Amino acid sequence: MQKLQERASNVSPLCIGLDTDVSYLPQSVLEQFPTQSEAVFAYNKAIIQRTYNSVACYKVQIAYYEKMGMSGLGVYKDTLQEIRQNAQGALAISDIKRGDIAATAKAYAAAHFEGDFATDIVTLNQYMGFDTLEPWLSYCTKTGGGKAAFLLLCTSNKGMADIEKQVLADGTLVLDISKSYLNAQAKLLCNSWDNATCSPLGAVVGCTHKDDAVKLRAECKDVFFLIPGFGAQGGDACIVAALLTGAGGVVNSSRGILCAWKNDANLTEKAHSGKLTLDDIADSAARQALLTIKEIVACKKDAGL
Amino acid sequence: MQKLQERASNVSPLCIGLDTDVSYLPQSVLEQFPTQSEAVFAYNKAIIQRTYNSVACYKVQIAYYEKMGMSGLGVYKDTLQEIRQNAQGALAISDIKRGDIAATAKAYAAAHFEGDFATDIVTLNQYMGFDTLEPWLSYCTKTGGGKAAFLLLCTSNKGMADIEKQVLADGTLVLDISKSYLNAQAKLLCNSWDNATCSPLGAVVGCTHKDDAVKLRAECKDVFFLIPGFGAQGGDACIVAALLTGAGGVVNSSRGILCAWKNDANLTEKAHSGKLTLDDIADSAARQALLTIKEIVACKKDAGL
Repeated sequence: MQKLQERASNVSPLCIGLDTDVSYLPQSVLEQFPTQSEAVFAYNKAIIQRTYNSVACYKVQIAYYEKMGMSGLGVYKDTLQEIRQNAQGALAISDIKRGDIAATAKAYAAAHFEGDFATDIVTLNQYMGFDTLEPWLSYCTKTGGGKAAFLLLCTSNKGMADIEKQVLADGTLVLDISKSYLNAQAKLLCNSWDNATCSPLGAVVGCTHKDDAVKLRAECKDVFFLIPGFGAQGGDACIVAALLTGAGGVVNSSRGILCAWKNDANLTEKAHSGKLTLDDIADSAARQALLTIKEIVACKKDAGL
Repeated sequence: MQKLQERASNVSPLCIGLDTDVSYLPQSVLEQFPTQSEAVFAYNKAIIQRTYNSVACYKVQIAYYEKMGMSGLGVYKDTLQEIRQNAQGALAISDIKRGDIAATAKAYAAAHFEGDFATDIVTLNQYMGFDTLEPWLSYCTKTGGGKAAFLLLCTSNKGMADIEKQVLADGTLVLDISKSYLNAQAKLLCNSWDNATCSPLGAVVGCTHKDDAVKLRAECKDVFFLIPGFGAQGGDACIVAALLTGAGGVVNSSRGILCAWKNDANLTEKAHSGKLTLDDIADSAARQALLTIKEIVACKKDAGL
């Protein structure tokens, strides 16, 4: 996570979400490849090659690849490999949100920190209990492999009110249980490294209200955040700025970048006439990535950061 | 789920957990196959062929296959296919515990109810909010594909105290939120079918105390349960009996059956001398499955059911 914090600071806090669905590609591009999965990998690769100099990391949402079955998981594997081998220090976050009892979590941790699907950082779902995290955290020490993980702290979906925001007997919220654990465990793990400034344990924070964002950031000032919801999901600039204070974070944009070509009149016209190429849409995504970085930087400036 | 309820009643309530780890197979068996994943599939297939007449279903824990990478997921796919095509009505439960925001859940639902990894029933993690379930539930209506799902209600790990058993401001527990949703939604979905006696929405209930089990069963009398923790995880017979009342359920045993040969002195001696065969261990698993069914039936009789 220390590397991610440094890169967010030295390069940019943008995380490109490679939640690539085959529907994001026009027919003219799909036809150039023997299979849909080859087209999707070519698209991911083209975007990575055009953006790695300007981003902190890529978040690969495994659901979109599971949906494509065996060949989709081949693309998932190849995409992670492309990032980790050829993206010059940009990191790979596997958005897997796995969570299960410890014996099973041990198998999941081996699945995503080793072997075909080896990644740098994962997202995890801790709601079955904190014992489910132990196998993952053993990889997050200096000697355990230097991996990192983001827990779910505050998700941006409307359903977060159902459980995460419920009030407990002592007046705190369900998400405060995660917060207390996170602060304590993040500190412990940070101390296991020499001179670390950032814990390998971070949090997914997708606030939809500014007050919540300011409060959460104040309460978890040393925790690095993964901030979803910029772009297509309609994140608010001042919320992002508040979350980027303290230990900082990375801001994810997926469809806003992957589907940027759909908002470009020239490119949609080219698509209609069957002339839109992979280069066109990857270039459009790369331009949108730079615009998104400018927006994030502008948020921070507006907020006086 | 109706089919599962009928099968649990007419055949037996045993669910064999195919959480197959390569370490469950002796070296002498592994050596007979070109790859470890081929050995694991051959083992799963041998167990399915020997047990389908006596079980309700098989629960395939995807974590163990993800751990083996691409080839492992090939075994996962082939195992699901073997159950659904050749197990004469025994059903496939994919233990995936997925949970994510709705757009992502839609991709996950397509991944596990269609295509390469198509299954009959899934386990889901609803803690990010009930909106994350909607894409899955649309497959659980009569016209949507007749699929089914188990939500997490009461898990058997020690960490369940961390969140699931926390007390809310109104004196109820966090798990009671899931319970209320489950009861209401299970009824709605059940009503969407003609003359259904069992809702396609069930619950994973792994109680470790008898009082909890009796209470939960009384509070969710119309909900079908998936009961883990029999055998290796040390489930208690009278707890299982209590959970099998009402709408009933299936009782899972994984390692207790898969590794039965390790508790058989003749077979471990054969393993040491390199003579243990796949047939030996599959036969041992099948014998253990029958013993487990007898134990479950005895529990029910002892409880006067």
